[in-house]
Amino acid sequence: MTDPQDATEGTETARATAAAPSRRALIGWGGAGLALGAAAAGGAVAMTRTGNDVDPAAAEVGGAVEFHGAHQAGIATPVQDRLHFAAFDVDTDDRAAFVQLLKDWTEAARRMTAGRAVGEGAYGGLAEAPPDDTGEALGLKPSRLTLTIGFGPSLFEKFGLKDKRPAALVDLPQFPGDNLDKNRSGGDLCIQACADDPQVAVHAVRNLARIGFGKVSIRWSQLGFGKTSSTTPDAQTPRNLMGFKDGTRNIAGTETDRLAKFVWVGEKDGPAWMTGGSYLVARRIRMHIETWDRTSLQEQEDVFGRDKGEGAPVGKAKERDEPFLKAMKPDAHVRLAHPDSNNGATILRRGYSFTDGTDGLGRLDAGLFFLAYQRDVRKGFIPVQRNLARMDALNEYIQHVGSAVFAVPPGVRDSGDWWGRTLFSEEA
Amino acid sequence: MTDPQDATEGTETARATAAAPSRRALIGWGGAGLALGAAAAGGAVAMTRTGNDVDPAAAEVGGAVEFHGAHQAGIATPVQDRLHFAAFDVDTDDRAAFVQLLKDWTEAARRMTAGRAVGEGAYGGLAEAPPDDTGEALGLKPSRLTLTIGFGPSLFEKFGLKDKRPAALVDLPQFPGDNLDKNRSGGDLCIQACADDPQVAVHAVRNLARIGFGKVSIRWSQLGFGKTSSTTPDAQTPRNLMGFKDGTRNIAGTETDRLAKFVWVGEKDGPAWMTGGSYLVARRIRMHIETWDRTSLQEQEDVFGRDKGEGAPVGKAKERDEPFLKAMKPDAHVRLAHPDSNNGATILRRGYSFTDGTDGLGRLDAGLFFLAYQRDVRKGFIPVQRNLARMDALNEYIQHVGSAVFAVPPGVRDSGDWWGRTLFSEEA
Repeated sequence: MTDPQDATEGTETARATAAAPSRRALIGWGGAGLALGAAAAGGAVAMTRTGNDVDPAAAEVGGAVEFHGAHQAGIATPVQDRLHFAAFDVDTDDRAAFVQLLKDWTEAARRMTAGRAVGEGAYGGLAEAPPDDTGEALGLKPSRLTLTIGFGPSLFEKFGLKDKRPAALVDLPQFPGDNLDKNRSGGDLCIQACADDPQVAVHAVRNLARIGFGKVSIRWSQLGFGKTSSTTPDAQTPRNLMGFKDGTRNIAGTETDRLAKFVWVGEKDGPAWMTGGSYLVARRIRMHIETWDRTSLQEQEDVFGRDKGEGAPVGKAKERDEPFLKAMKPDAHVRLAHPDSNNGATILRRGYSFTDGTDGLGRLDAGLFFLAYQRDVRKGFIPVQRNLARMDALNEYIQHVGSAVFAVPPGVRDSGDWWGRTLFSEEA
Repeated sequence: MTDPQDATEGTETARATAAAPSRRALIGWGGAGLALGAAAAGGAVAMTRTGNDVDPAAAEVGGAVEFHGAHQAGIATPVQDRLHFAAFDVDTDDRAAFVQLLKDWTEAARRMTAGRAVGEGAYGGLAEAPPDDTGEALGLKPSRLTLTIGFGPSLFEKFGLKDKRPAALVDLPQFPGDNLDKNRSGGDLCIQACADDPQVAVHAVRNLARIGFGKVSIRWSQLGFGKTSSTTPDAQTPRNLMGFKDGTRNIAGTETDRLAKFVWVGEKDGPAWMTGGSYLVARRIRMHIETWDRTSLQEQEDVFGRDKGEGAPVGKAKERDEPFLKAMKPDAHVRLAHPDSNNGATILRRGYSFTDGTDGLGRLDAGLFFLAYQRDVRKGFIPVQRNLARMDALNEYIQHVGSAVFAVPPGVRDSGDWWGRTLFSEEA
């Protein structure tokens, strides 16, 4: 039903133009009738359909990314500039109430990703009620907002879901060097909000939290101010806070074969409810940037196995030249993370740089909020991280301080579908 | 010498075009000679000169804002989208070393605001030394970066500066309702970095901190993801996290008379070293957004004294209609903050929304990082905040949790000038 191989057939890409709807145009307090009409018309707006095949034309600033598809948007979608990520705990044991929340969330996500406000806009007539939308994104463009939901291992302890937990959703082992803060780890659910305008991403998470009041509460959240990976190979490779280009050899949203091989859960993988989904590993990686900044250029380049300016692998001239791993030091990061050093293990990276104030010692609390999607955590992040944790030269300058893993269900197919239906509907 | 009335004469505004230099083009490891040539040519790039008169054309994304001028950029300059603000403590009592740092910082700021890397780019030949620039902004546009320095009251306890402390730089009183965290308050120095790309702002603060290593350390810092005020009256008024338009009647960067009256320190104000400068009040204002979001639209609009959709004052139709204060509730925020309720007190607001994860109780740690510039703190922020703290209906939904005040010296006049020269040079 959600065979990833079918998705390309349904792909329609259209350039989101300057005619993309403004949130201001689509909703207004005190102008409910008008707003409703405009919102309905919004369905005709040019959008980018997601699926296996993602067109870099979707990178148009201000446009909307299609919410529906075989896969959730926000994975193979061209990486947006900013992130707001939230992990939630479930506070209710009422299964029906939780399923209703998933439906309500889906409807809100459908509207917000299209650049619309939450609710039907009838604010003018309901002065005595709280507004359906908190309002701070009114007037802002859709900004390529994507909202992606994931289910953590602990969710499967609830609602009689124990037998539904995928084998591929393993608890991560404790890696050498981990220094995990439980207040920045785990979670029954997650929402990944990516957008080119951070206010649009923050607005989306905040409104989902508001809708979930009494049923779920935010366990931890993370703002990412700059993307560190790209899924569009022709785009400029972004730099991480160590100043190096990151994700040069990342899986591109256009590489259908590699996505099917390494990212999307296939029909034969099981469980059936996860077909078309993926698994997400989130790691908060603190960088000791003050130490790094006092390290010589040569040491920095040795640590990565690439030169800092161009990003070329050791001994090569250009960023995208094929790396010759044996020319790098045995503990070089690029060498250890390379599929050839990990029996082919490959993950789709989607991380963001963060800066969260200071640590009380005069240092910035800054680093990489690492996000990686994969078809099976046991064949993706775990073997790669085992190798890195063992001997990566970079370990002297970083520390993993937060960790979570989530099963990311397949996409919402159409306007009648909802997040998590394949997990919950058989028993509902 | 820095009479603000003269500044308009020196104003040159030019639209920063798509030809604005890319940081990538201007610097490169391993290509030092080329990079130097390009950096030198950067001087000819179209820029926006700051002074009293600021042209909204400077709002062009990607352009550079001129660093030199009678006033520091980043005050009357059209408000950029993102903020990284850092307060520093001074760790040295060596006056000469501190003055040298101010000179080094000035040179770095001059380069970074022009879209260049720190240092002369000769990285290729110095593999054994740490790079002069941390690198994460290479390839990014200047992004209208402005860097603005301020001196806190505690700085005047050092370096024999006691007699130089301006009378207008008072310690703020404790206001009713304040719940200040000393770890988010005060500071000997501050750097306000504003840019349309947050990575450019973060890069700038991080590199200044790096250059200051051993002499200064970051006391606290704050990322602002979205502007909440505009200094360009024709631009769309941004919304704060309460969903209301903020700063509708803010002082515009083009209002030379109001800037001279309310923002710039005049020759007769004294001390002489502050002529052309201003005073900055920074307040971290936590919003109880979860409570706010469960408040009726009517209550929200009563609290502000404006309608939520259009932003019109009570009883008026349009956002920019003149407010009729008596039509508002006596405790309405707009009424109490209005100059007519404060003997004409007027401040230039430049605040940003923040979201710093969660508070451990399932709530977002979100709110407004309030920044306001004024000619005299005693006639600006203090009377307004006294009035608000006393009875503002908004107080039920907000709390001030951080506070700082800084004397912001005049602008760096030319390539031989440096931050703080008017304060330090007479005795140097």
